[in-house]
Amino acid sequence: MCELLGMSANVPTDICFSFSGLRARGGRTGPHKDGWGMAMYRDGDVWTIHDPRPSADSDIAEVISHNSLKCDIVISHIRQANVGGVCLLNTHPFSRLLWGKTWSYAHNGQLEDVSALPIERHHPLGSTDSERAFCWIIEQLQARLGEDEPSLDDISTVLSELALQLKGRGVFNMMLSDGARLYCFCTTKLHWITRRAPFKKATLSDEDVIIDFKEVTTDKDVVTVIATQPLTQDEMWSQMEEGELCVFEGGEVVCQIKAN
Amino acid sequence: MCELLGMSANVPTDICFSFSGLRARGGRTGPHKDGWGMAMYRDGDVWTIHDPRPSADSDIAEVISHNSLKCDIVISHIRQANVGGVCLLNTHPFSRLLWGKTWSYAHNGQLEDVSALPIERHHPLGSTDSERAFCWIIEQLQARLGEDEPSLDDISTVLSELALQLKGRGVFNMMLSDGARLYCFCTTKLHWITRRAPFKKATLSDEDVIIDFKEVTTDKDVVTVIATQPLTQDEMWSQMEEGELCVFEGGEVVCQIKAN
Repeated sequence: MCELLGMSANVPTDICFSFSGLRARGGRTGPHKDGWGMAMYRDGDVWTIHDPRPSADSDIAEVISHNSLKCDIVISHIRQANVGGVCLLNTHPFSRLLWGKTWSYAHNGQLEDVSALPIERHHPLGSTDSERAFCWIIEQLQARLGEDEPSLDDISTVLSELALQLKGRGVFNMMLSDGARLYCFCTTKLHWITRRAPFKKATLSDEDVIIDFKEVTTDKDVVTVIATQPLTQDEMWSQMEEGELCVFEGGEVVCQIKAN
Repeated sequence: MCELLGMSANVPTDICFSFSGLRARGGRTGPHKDGWGMAMYRDGDVWTIHDPRPSADSDIAEVISHNSLKCDIVISHIRQANVGGVCLLNTHPFSRLLWGKTWSYAHNGQLEDVSALPIERHHPLGSTDSERAFCWIIEQLQARLGEDEPSLDDISTVLSELALQLKGRGVFNMMLSDGARLYCFCTTKLHWITRRAPFKKATLSDEDVIIDFKEVTTDKDVVTVIATQPLTQDEMWSQMEEGELCVFEGGEVVCQIKAN
């Protein structure tokens, strides 16, 4: 399996603290040693890092966890390979163009028989079930919603249907973003926390690191962090339900669709 | 147009000094403001950074230029967009799998009518002439040389033929690597320098930075840097010839094929 980390904030915020926790699970406190990657959005631009080495040993992961790169949205992924060898092109997050924006996506879980998902325009570069499912999602969104960017409600409704179909093939925990919103779908495990004033201290579960968010925020900041497993040991994280789609924008929940 | 930067070394070496020079040309001392990217190889692994923002303004470019990430081979590219919008998926270097290795590629120049180049298995993700030409190169190498990795001579001979065909469509300066060797082809502009003992001081042309290579090397180090334009003002760079393919391994030239 793998672990996911996402962030949505109303002011550009770095992911150093949370990524330090996630990174440790990539070969040291956890078994997810088959690469890691990150998509970082700011002002609609996205930049990416892909590294098939264990995040716990990676020199560039070390650099990223100690340098404040301010983002509106982040998707990060540490991989424990099931389907597809350990190589750059199998390293999440994957990116494709849709409605004039670059969409990034990462997946945790395993899906059966993804080759049965029809794709025509968007081909995978690597050999993972995850990327194949992503190509299908992008094609389906375009086919069902047209060539112009639809409303949040329309995207969320269709995305929820697609995600439930994929859930029928196995475990489908995923994060998807266009730079404005962060769409998260849960099959088994996704937890989230929204931090806002009054900010407090927090202690990582995987690293001997404490942060006092009061010192790095203003009263107006709203920052939501989403992760496979809670990353801190002294905060209350919410658990997403099975089959739930939750959409974040500017750190706030803007849409929630539950399966039942 | 764009600018290219490559490195081949016999010991893991960082690209900080050279990248500081290149980076300035991405929006400050040069017009190549439409993104930048880097593929870094070490021990056969490759990791990548892609950022469609100007390298001169990019916070992650700043971080990379000041943190020593040791590599055997580097390919970096700063872009001035001609064909294809400014977005992540049009940002070099591009990567594809061939003979069990991840090949990375960056291109400087413009090619006419690349849609006439037949491709079947490897599809571009973005809309640049550069990536389309890369997909064709990968397919041609595989079609002509088979499924198992061929010899240096065989790869170089076919690659030289392919590059000369592309040169017939415009300007084709390019760098290509599988992590073991760095293949460089010149149509108009590529310069290179090999640094070895006795090491000296060098001064960047684009930044107020001097390095004393004696202080950061041992007597056994051999480091070759290849760039569109010389990056230093007090060293003698060699200029590659029109139509020349030059292959570097461990900092040394291991193959050279000239057009005439």
